[in-house]
Amino acid sequence: MPLWKIYHPVGVFSREDKQGLSEAITAIYARNLPKFYVGVVFQEVAADSFFIGGEPTGDFVRIWVDHIARTMPTPEIRAKFIEMVDAVLAPYVRDRGLRWECHIDETSYELWSIHGYRPPLPGTEDEKRWRAENRPSPVGPREVTA
Amino acid sequence: MPLWKIYHPVGVFSREDKQGLSEAITAIYARNLPKFYVGVVFQEVAADSFFIGGEPTGDFVRIWVDHIARTMPTPEIRAKFIEMVDAVLAPYVRDRGLRWECHIDETSYELWSIHGYRPPLPGTEDEKRWRAENRPSPVGPREVTA
Amino acid sequence: MPLWKIYHPVGVFSREDKQGLSEAITAIYARNLPKFYVGVVFQEVAADSFFIGGEPTGDFVRIWVDHIARTMPTPEIRAKFIEMVDAVLAPYVRDRGLRWECHIDETSYELWSIHGYRPPLPGTEDEKRWRAENRPSPVGPREVTA
Repeated sequence: MPLWKIYHPVGVFSREDKQGLSEAITAIYARNLPKFYVGVVFQEVAADSFFIGGEPTGDFVRIWVDHIARTMPTPEIRAKFIEMVDAVLAPYVRDRGLRWECHIDETSYELWSIHGYRPPLPGTEDEKRWRAENRPSPVGPREVTA
Repeated sequence: MPLWKIYHPVGVFSREDKQGLSEAITAIYARNLPKFYVGVVFQEVAADSFFIGGEPTGDFVRIWVDHIARTMPTPEIRAKFIEMVDAVLAPYVRDRGLRWECHIDETSYELWSIHGYRPPLPGTEDEKRWRAENRPSPVGPREVTA
Repeated sequence: MPLWKIYHPVGVFSREDKQGLSEAITAIYARNLPKFYVGVVFQEVAADSFFIGGEPTGDFVRIWVDHIARTMPTPEIRAKFIEMVDAVLAPYVRDRGLRWECHIDETSYELWSIHGYRPPLPGTEDEKRWRAENRPSPVGPREVTA
């Protein structure tokens, strides 16, 4: 959680761009979550395999995100989060004249494992330790909370 | 919204096929939505990386779709939509002897942005303008509708 | 259903590994479902396009799964399933010193088609036949079950 999949035209992002964007994405979450929760996969797509509105595109960045560790409970929080995402993306897309689209799906905390562990619940001591150490380690039994 | 991801064997689709299929997919939505909402990404997968039922495959097209702008409210509408999708796919898959599978996920309208805008709600004047101009532009404040 | 997408570092899985892992994944489901329901797509990702916690990674396997044919009704079943998945993955990831993460999304049975058919409902004679024959064939009318 989160997994960011970034489809982008060939050659628009350098190695440094990808590093920088990944760090900026990770920073969105790192206040609350272990850093190693944040996965980012970049994938180049050639213009003849990438269509927007039925037309081949060489200037569009399409981002698909799955959120697992947290769901956002209110419309206001969701709106705020999307704003934060756009602020992070802006230097890499808008400021370079690229078009972009981003959407986020939310999936079940219970259908998730990291390194064979079921990740600790939000706010637990286990989660704090994972965050402090930036790696998974054995967790106590999870109380089933619905 | 929608994002179509099409995994396909190496070499089964020409540039013209991909163009034609993307246009046909876009047409499914264009009666109601701005054309530029429709993203299609084709990805070739080599037989040694593509397994169906545990066997390497060179004849299977696997399509995964995320719907964001609209959710389908009734079983009848969902059935109808799937039929429409299959009709669009048939010339590119069935009629060539390829096997295929397609599934659609529906994700939150509120966790979505295009070019830094939160897309206008269905049926609004903003959405009509986006559709008429086939590009995003500033939108009025969104009433939170739960 | 299920679709398994496996992002992995370059060169960590041989052709035989991918075959073996696909068969093991298929076996998880084959007690209940037609084998050909199980799709697995492997995708190599270069270290400069694959980031965990903001750092380029060459030792992480990130697995994303969509479940369609079945949803898991209780926390206990979900926990059990995730354990089963980890047991299947262990020889290919943990035992090789790779890190990994896996999450599963559940999507709508009604927004799914295979080879132009809407797959039969769980436990029906049609589904048994599909399973026995390991291929799709015409199905009777589906009762809408909400």
